[in-house]
Amino acid sequence: MVQQMSAPQSPAQQQPKVQLPRTSESETLKKIRHTASHVMAMAVQKLFPKAQVTIGPWIENGFYYDFDNPESFTEKDLKAIQKEMAKIINRKLPVIREEVSREEAERRIKAINEPYKLEILEDIKQEPITIYHLGDEWWDLCAGPHVENTSELNPKAIELESVAGAYWRGDETKAQLQRIYATAWETPEQLAEYKRRKEEALKRDHRKLGKELGLFVFSDDVGPGLPLWTPKGTILRSVLEDFLKQEQVNRGYQPVVTPHIGRVELFKISGHWQKYKDDLFPMMGEKEEEGFVLKAMNCPFHIQIYKSELRSYRELPFRLAEFGTVYRYEQSGELGGLTRVRGFTQDDAHLFVTPEQLDSEFLNVVDLILSVIKSLRLDQNFKARLSFRDPTSDKYIGSDDAWNKAENAIRRAVETLGMDHFEGIGEAAFYGPKLDFIVRDALDREWQLGTVQVDYNLPERFDLEYVAEDGTRKRPVMIHRAPFGSLERLIGILIEEYAGDFPLWLAPVQVRLLPVGDAQRDFAINVAAKMRAAGIRAEADKSNERLGKLIRNAEKEKIPVMAVVGAKEVEVNSLSIRTRAAGELGVMSVDDVLDKIKNAIANHDTF
Amino acid sequence: MVQQMSAPQSPAQQQPKVQLPRTSESETLKKIRHTASHVMAMAVQKLFPKAQVTIGPWIENGFYYDFDNPESFTEKDLKAIQKEMAKIINRKLPVIREEVSREEAERRIKAINEPYKLEILEDIKQEPITIYHLGDEWWDLCAGPHVENTSELNPKAIELESVAGAYWRGDETKAQLQRIYATAWETPEQLAEYKRRKEEALKRDHRKLGKELGLFVFSDDVGPGLPLWTPKGTILRSVLEDFLKQEQVNRGYQPVVTPHIGRVELFKISGHWQKYKDDLFPMMGEKEEEGFVLKAMNCPFHIQIYKSELRSYRELPFRLAEFGTVYRYEQSGELGGLTRVRGFTQDDAHLFVTPEQLDSEFLNVVDLILSVIKSLRLDQNFKARLSFRDPTSDKYIGSDDAWNKAENAIRRAVETLGMDHFEGIGEAAFYGPKLDFIVRDALDREWQLGTVQVDYNLPERFDLEYVAEDGTRKRPVMIHRAPFGSLERLIGILIEEYAGDFPLWLAPVQVRLLPVGDAQRDFAINVAAKMRAAGIRAEADKSNERLGKLIRNAEKEKIPVMAVVGAKEVEVNSLSIRTRAAGELGVMSVDDVLDKIKNAIANHDTF
Repeated sequence: MVQQMSAPQSPAQQQPKVQLPRTSESETLKKIRHTASHVMAMAVQKLFPKAQVTIGPWIENGFYYDFDNPESFTEKDLKAIQKEMAKIINRKLPVIREEVSREEAERRIKAINEPYKLEILEDIKQEPITIYHLGDEWWDLCAGPHVENTSELNPKAIELESVAGAYWRGDETKAQLQRIYATAWETPEQLAEYKRRKEEALKRDHRKLGKELGLFVFSDDVGPGLPLWTPKGTILRSVLEDFLKQEQVNRGYQPVVTPHIGRVELFKISGHWQKYKDDLFPMMGEKEEEGFVLKAMNCPFHIQIYKSELRSYRELPFRLAEFGTVYRYEQSGELGGLTRVRGFTQDDAHLFVTPEQLDSEFLNVVDLILSVIKSLRLDQNFKARLSFRDPTSDKYIGSDDAWNKAENAIRRAVETLGMDHFEGIGEAAFYGPKLDFIVRDALDREWQLGTVQVDYNLPERFDLEYVAEDGTRKRPVMIHRAPFGSLERLIGILIEEYAGDFPLWLAPVQVRLLPVGDAQRDFAINVAAKMRAAGIRAEADKSNERLGKLIRNAEKEKIPVMAVVGAKEVEVNSLSIRTRAAGELGVMSVDDVLDKIKNAIANHDTF
Repeated sequence: MVQQMSAPQSPAQQQPKVQLPRTSESETLKKIRHTASHVMAMAVQKLFPKAQVTIGPWIENGFYYDFDNPESFTEKDLKAIQKEMAKIINRKLPVIREEVSREEAERRIKAINEPYKLEILEDIKQEPITIYHLGDEWWDLCAGPHVENTSELNPKAIELESVAGAYWRGDETKAQLQRIYATAWETPEQLAEYKRRKEEALKRDHRKLGKELGLFVFSDDVGPGLPLWTPKGTILRSVLEDFLKQEQVNRGYQPVVTPHIGRVELFKISGHWQKYKDDLFPMMGEKEEEGFVLKAMNCPFHIQIYKSELRSYRELPFRLAEFGTVYRYEQSGELGGLTRVRGFTQDDAHLFVTPEQLDSEFLNVVDLILSVIKSLRLDQNFKARLSFRDPTSDKYIGSDDAWNKAENAIRRAVETLGMDHFEGIGEAAFYGPKLDFIVRDALDREWQLGTVQVDYNLPERFDLEYVAEDGTRKRPVMIHRAPFGSLERLIGILIEEYAGDFPLWLAPVQVRLLPVGDAQRDFAINVAAKMRAAGIRAEADKSNERLGKLIRNAEKEKIPVMAVVGAKEVEVNSLSIRTRAAGELGVMSVDDVLDKIKNAIANHDTF
C-alpha cells in the first residue's frame, strides 16, 4: 500500500550542480578548516600584536576564531587579515604535529604570554599534549587533524565573513572577545556555490518573506517565540489543516479537542515532569499538588480520552487526532522565526493498537507521511532517521524489553519499505524510539519534518487496557505521530522551499483581478465575487493605479494568477491570464478560467 | 438589514401553559417564601428542641433555612417537619411586625438562648431592629416583608426538597450547619408545574446527557473545569465553528490565530492585570517583568495584529475573528459541567472601526447574532440586556466621556431595532458597556448567550491609530463580540434545549444504516460509505443484534435518521426511513434519501 517515493522533478526542485561536501562527512574539509583557523590566528597576531588567541574550531561551512583584542576589528581589518592569510598560505609552511608533556606545554605558553591558552591547557585531561606548528613561526594547542602544508589550502576558496561578540567560555561574566567567522572550501567553485546558496537563503529567509508577504508577526508585549498569525498566514494554516484533516478522516482518525493545561499530577504519571521539566513553562501556582502547567505535548490528554471508557478490541485501532497547540520553554536566545518557537501547533495523533496491529498501523502512518511529503512537493530528496535511545544514558524511562520491541518495530518497517535510512543514537524521545523524516531542500539544507514513535511505556504508566477477543484485559501499544511536525515549522520550511511562491492550492490569495481602467472595475469585482462563491480565494484590485503598477504589486505579493480585465475582455466575458509559474497564458472565457482553477486547486496542480 | 425576530413556533418550542412568576419579580412570592421559612424554623424547633436557628432567606423557586442541630435531618424528619408546617399554617397565626431597640433585641435573644442570632444582631447596623412574630409562639429577626397571616400560605403549594451541609457564615472553619431547602408557591398548580420542570431539567441535564451521548469527559488528573472533547463532541464543535466561520467570512471577517499566553506586560497595558488579576490563572515565573500568564481574553492579541502595521481608513472596518481558547481561574467549587468552566473557546472577534462606522457596524453585529440565534432555533423567546457600568463603583477604567459615548451607541442600536430590552447596571465589562442576549428556554430558564461590547478605552490604552482620509492620525473604536459566547456554554445550553435531540445538521451521527440480517450488511456498509462521500455523517451498524435492538440503540443515541435495510430494500436499492422527529416515513430510493438529507442539512431543516 505504500506509494513510490521517486517522482519526476520539477525545475524548481532540481538540486544544484556543484555539490557541497558537509564538514561532518568530509575529513578533508575538517583538516582544511582546522588549518585555516590557525592561519587566520597567525595572521591576526602578525597584524595586531596585542591580540591574544583563545579557541578556533571548524564549524559547518567554515570556522571561527575568538580573539581578545583592545580594538574592534573593522571590515577593513578583515580584508587585511585575509590578504595576510594568503601570504602565509603561499609561503607553503609545513604543518607539524608535536607531542609534549604538560609541563613543557605550560612552559611554552608562559613564554609567549597567552593566559587563555593556559586555562585551556588546564582543561585538557589526557597526555601527551599535542601542539601544531605553522613552520617555526606560530603554534597552537590543538587535537588536529590538519593538512600537512599550508599549500594544501586555496586562498581563493577561503573568505572572512563577519565579526561578532563572544564571551570567554560563553560566560557573560567573563571577558568579551571578538569572533571572526570565515568560510573555507576545497575549491573556488565550492566557495562560489556556497556564496550563491547563502545569498539565495537570505532571499528566501522565512522571517524576511513572512514579513513581506504579511503572514505572521511577533510582538514584544506578547513575548519572544510566540507568533501571531495574520489573516493571510491563518489561511495558510487552515488550508494545511483542512488538507491533513481530510486525509486523516479518510484513514479512520477521529478529531478531538483537549485543554492547553493540566495538573502537574498528570505529567508526573506520564514522566514528563521528571524527565522534561526544564522544557516546560514554569508551573502556575505554588504547590505541586495544586499546580497546573502548560502542555508541551498532547499524549497525556488523548490517553485520558482513551481511558474514559473501557475499550474493546473492536474499537482498536483507536486513532485520536488533534491540531494541538503546545508550549515549550526554549531559551530566548535560541528563538528565531518559525523554526524555533515557544508555542506551536502539532498535527498530532495517537493510535492505540493491539500488539498484532502495530506493524500494519505503523506502515499506514508512514504511508500517510509519505503522501503528505509528496503533496507538499518535498519528496525529491529525503531520508529517514531511526532515532534510537543511547543505552548508556539515564534520560529514558521503561524496560529494555519495551525499548527493544519498539526499536525492532521501527526497523522492520523501514526494511519492509526499503527506505533510505540511518540510525541516530540518542535521538529518541524519553519514552520511546522515533522514525524521523529529514528533508533536504533546494539549497541542500536539511530540515526535520514528520515523526512516528512507537511507545510501550506510556500505556504501562497510565495502566491502559482493552478487552481482548478472549475476554481478558490486555495492554495496547501507542503510536505517536505528526506528519507536518508542527504547522509553524512546516510553514517556515515551505516559505523557504517555495521562496514565497506558494503553489496555487496553498496561496493565501489565489487570483487577483486587475481592471485596466474605471470602466472595468465593476466587472472585475463581480468576477472576483463569482470566484469566491466557487471557493476560490480571489480579489479585485480596486486601487486607481495604472495596469503596470497593479501587475508589479501582484508580482511583489507573489499572487499565482493575475487576471487582467480590459474593454475587450469585458465585451466577450473573458480574462487575460498571467501566472507566476508560466507567464502569459492569453485570453480565456471566465467560465473556462473558473473550471481550470478549481481543478488545479483540487489536484494541487499549477494553473 | 436586521431581520425580524418573531418566527412560527415549532411544538418543541412552545412555552409551558402554567407560567411561573420569578421571586425577583413578584412581591407576593417574596412574602410567601419569607413567611414559609419562618414557619419551617418554628416547626423544626417544635420537633427538635435542641435545634438552633441561624438564617433563612428566600431564593429563586423557594427558600432555605440553616440549623445547628446535633443530629442529621433524615428524609423522614423532612416529612414530619412538612406536616408540622401544615398544622402551623392551618392555625391561621397572624404575622406581626415589631420594632425594638438594639438593647431590647439583645435581651430577648439572650432569653431564648440563640447565640447565632446574637452574632446576626451585631451585623445589623440600622435601628430600630425589626422582629417578626408568628402569633405569640415564635419570632425571628427579619427585615421582611411577610404575609399578614399564615393562612395566606397554601400547605399544598409548599414542599421540603433536600438537606445539605453548610457552614456558619459560609466559613469552613466555623460550625457546620444543616440547610433545609424547600420550594414554595402561590398555588398547588404552580408547585406541580415547578416539579414538572425540575424533573424535565434533570432529564435534560447536559452533564448527564453529555455522558450518555459521549460528547465530552472530565479527568481528575487534567483538572476540574477543563473538558476534554471526545470524537462526537468534537464534531459538534466543528460544525458550529464552521457554520459561524462561513457566516463571518461572508460578512468580511478575517480569521487569525494568536497564542494562549502573553507577557504580564501585555495585560498591564490592557488593564486586565490590575482589574482582573483574581480571575487569571497564577503567573508563570517569579518576576512580573519576565512572567507569562494564560490569556483570559483575546483582545490584547488582536490589538497586536492591528498595531503591527500603520492602518489606513481604507482598511477599516478591520474585523479580526478567532475561535480563541481562554482560561479563567474560577473557584473549583463553582465549576459544573460546561456552563461554568476554567477553559473555554470564545467565538471571538474584534472590529476596529472609525467613529463614523460605529453605528452601522454595531447593527451588523447584532444582525449576525440574531441570525445565529435563529439558526440555532433559540429565537422564540429572548431579550437584550444593556449591561452598563455602575457609576458609583471604581472597578472600571476610562473617562466618563468614553463611557457615555459607548453606552449611547448601544442605546441607539436597540432603539433603532426596536428590541425588547432592559438595563443591567453594574453588568458592564471593566473597559466598556455590553449588549447581552439572554435566551429563555422551553423550561423558562434564562441563559446568557452572545454579547457585543463597545470600547473606547483599549484603543486609548494601546494608542491605536489609523490614517484618516485627510491624512491625519485618528483613534479607532473597538467592538468586541461573541455570538455564541463560548462553544462550551453554547453546547451545554443546546444539549438542554434540545434534550440531546440535535437537529440533523448538528447531530454527530446523522444517519445510521440498520441491516435486518447478515445478507444486508454489505449493502448497508456501501450505502453508508456513499453517504459519507456526499458529506453526510453516516454509519452502518455492524453488530449482530436483531433489528429491534438496533433500533433501540439508535433511539438511545438519539440518531436523527435510521435507515432500515431488509431484503426488499436491497432488491430495489432503497431504504426504509424512520426519523426521531417524524417516525416512520416509509421506503425511499437511496438516491432520493441522499438528496433529501443533503438538502435538509444545508437548510438546517429536519428530514
